[in-house]
Amino acid sequence: MATVPYRRRHARSREAGITIGELGEFGLIAAIAARMPPAPGAIVGIGDDSAVLRVPDSRIVATTDLLVQGRHFRTDWSGPADVGCKAAAQSLADVAAMGAVPEALLVGLAAPSGLPVAWAADLASGLAGEAARAGAHVIGGDVSEASLIMLAVTAIGTMAGKEPVTRSGARPSDVVAVAGRLGHSASGLALLQAGLTEPAAAVAAHLRPRPPYGAGPEAAALGATSMIDISDGLLADLGHIAAASGVLIDVETARLEPAGPLLEAAAVLGASPLDWVLSGGEDHCLAATFPAHAGLPPHWMVIGHVRDGQGVLVDGRSYTGEFGWQHFS
Amino acid sequence: MATVPYRRRHARSREAGITIGELGEFGLIAAIAARMPPAPGAIVGIGDDSAVLRVPDSRIVATTDLLVQGRHFRTDWSGPADVGCKAAAQSLADVAAMGAVPEALLVGLAAPSGLPVAWAADLASGLAGEAARAGAHVIGGDVSEASLIMLAVTAIGTMAGKEPVTRSGARPSDVVAVAGRLGHSASGLALLQAGLTEPAAAVAAHLRPRPPYGAGPEAAALGATSMIDISDGLLADLGHIAAASGVLIDVETARLEPAGPLLEAAAVLGASPLDWVLSGGEDHCLAATFPAHAGLPPHWMVIGHVRDGQGVLVDGRSYTGEFGWQHFS
Repeated sequence: MATVPYRRRHARSREAGITIGELGEFGLIAAIAARMPPAPGAIVGIGDDSAVLRVPDSRIVATTDLLVQGRHFRTDWSGPADVGCKAAAQSLADVAAMGAVPEALLVGLAAPSGLPVAWAADLASGLAGEAARAGAHVIGGDVSEASLIMLAVTAIGTMAGKEPVTRSGARPSDVVAVAGRLGHSASGLALLQAGLTEPAAAVAAHLRPRPPYGAGPEAAALGATSMIDISDGLLADLGHIAAASGVLIDVETARLEPAGPLLEAAAVLGASPLDWVLSGGEDHCLAATFPAHAGLPPHWMVIGHVRDGQGVLVDGRSYTGEFGWQHFS
Repeated sequence: MATVPYRRRHARSREAGITIGELGEFGLIAAIAARMPPAPGAIVGIGDDSAVLRVPDSRIVATTDLLVQGRHFRTDWSGPADVGCKAAAQSLADVAAMGAVPEALLVGLAAPSGLPVAWAADLASGLAGEAARAGAHVIGGDVSEASLIMLAVTAIGTMAGKEPVTRSGARPSDVVAVAGRLGHSASGLALLQAGLTEPAAAVAAHLRPRPPYGAGPEAAALGATSMIDISDGLLADLGHIAAASGVLIDVETARLEPAGPLLEAAAVLGASPLDWVLSGGEDHCLAATFPAHAGLPPHWMVIGHVRDGQGVLVDGRSYTGEFGWQHFS
């Protein structure tokens, strides 16, 4: 399988009429592998029974996330590179949320035989691109026929000598801080559901999340007592920290002033941007708790406090809006 | 979610009428986790953003395999524990095929909302049981709604100080040897396709593969020059070794005398047991090449030789039967 160029319009002439069923399993793997830069940490990469990865620490971090067509993405909204980006981002963010450095991805791709090879190859480019943004590489995977597109992305990272930051270490008097964008993905989803593609920045935030990977290990170095990836929504995910740590978390909305694309999208739709900020998932930003004396850099924005008690409050009161996302509901 | 007992008939009273959609994402994860024994190597297990695993070596082995309803299993043939066993076995065997020791599994489970909780819980028991047979533990995963059942199982192992055994090290004058059962799974599949459930041993071999996990690290210690998990069929998988190593492999059928359930199944169906042995996949036994002087224990059965050249021969000639399994065809 020759290497195919990244841009879809260039790839079309070569792959337009070919489906992955016509190409076959081994040709498809070769087409995907051709989009993947070699992994410096891989002693054995794509093409053997398993990959072999050099690990510089005595502990690894590992996580698997699923991305299912019709449930997590729609092919009329997301292009193949968007889907690849999103699949990689959600798993890589889970590694960063432990305070770890992402190293490697394994990708399981199930898809209908009639899927164009160009679509699968651009998906691979999206995966490789987002992996590169996190400093990681695709080292292996599997493909299979299925009636819908589904990705299972496993991300592996290393602790680089630090202790993992779990959900259970938040303590009363800690501050709660967030790195990355809140609510942007939800605003983009609301626009797409309304049949809109503008404001483009909000829509792009839904199609291509931008987790702040470096903020994960940084938080560990700054003494974070707990951390989580915001995938289900700020309040829902802070609820996981509150439950695991046995504490109460109080979020102050005055610190969450929505701005930029959020305000534009809210104006277009007549919606409340604060609801997106509090309940919107899939931005894959990081929320963490820190001792009050920790000197946080500006990209770790303090948004609340940890107190004795249980659950999550907004400005000292129960929040009455939508609380978050459950995968079976 | 209370711990539920292993046996399905006992679980029925508790879970009979409940679907995973009614239980919800977090209840489902709890029901699955309740079937999983704690992992001694996991510093952080099921329930955080990622698992954290202690690794005793500077290299890890990692692999992901998919198992798709209707493609790799049928729910009218396989019970949930069978599906869990098969999903675990195919990934764990890929770790063993590198000469590595399996340590941990991550499981992505996509399934329809209407799936009974009891089915998912018994699936988890099947996964946990096969992981235990390999000395490994489930340390994390993900669940999602989808229109069909699909599993993505990532297996992680350690090299325990040894060098990985790839597909590319076979050399002329090496012997080819196999550990585990050949063709049994294919004979069971043929029986099921004919509407039969006897001989039971052959059917069971299809529903629950029994990879010889310990034979992988053992082969590495015995000096194996190449190794592969037989998932697509003996000739097809030896073809991967021949291609990666740049050698010719000659299989001697006189050394492959079919016996036991294979002969019984062949008699029932009027089929050729040798075709199953040469081309049947999914037994997940291991094939490896060794220097001719390597003293092999009896469970590593010599079945052929490596020579100068390319490709795979059977008794010195091209094989004219079915050659193996491709996932898109």
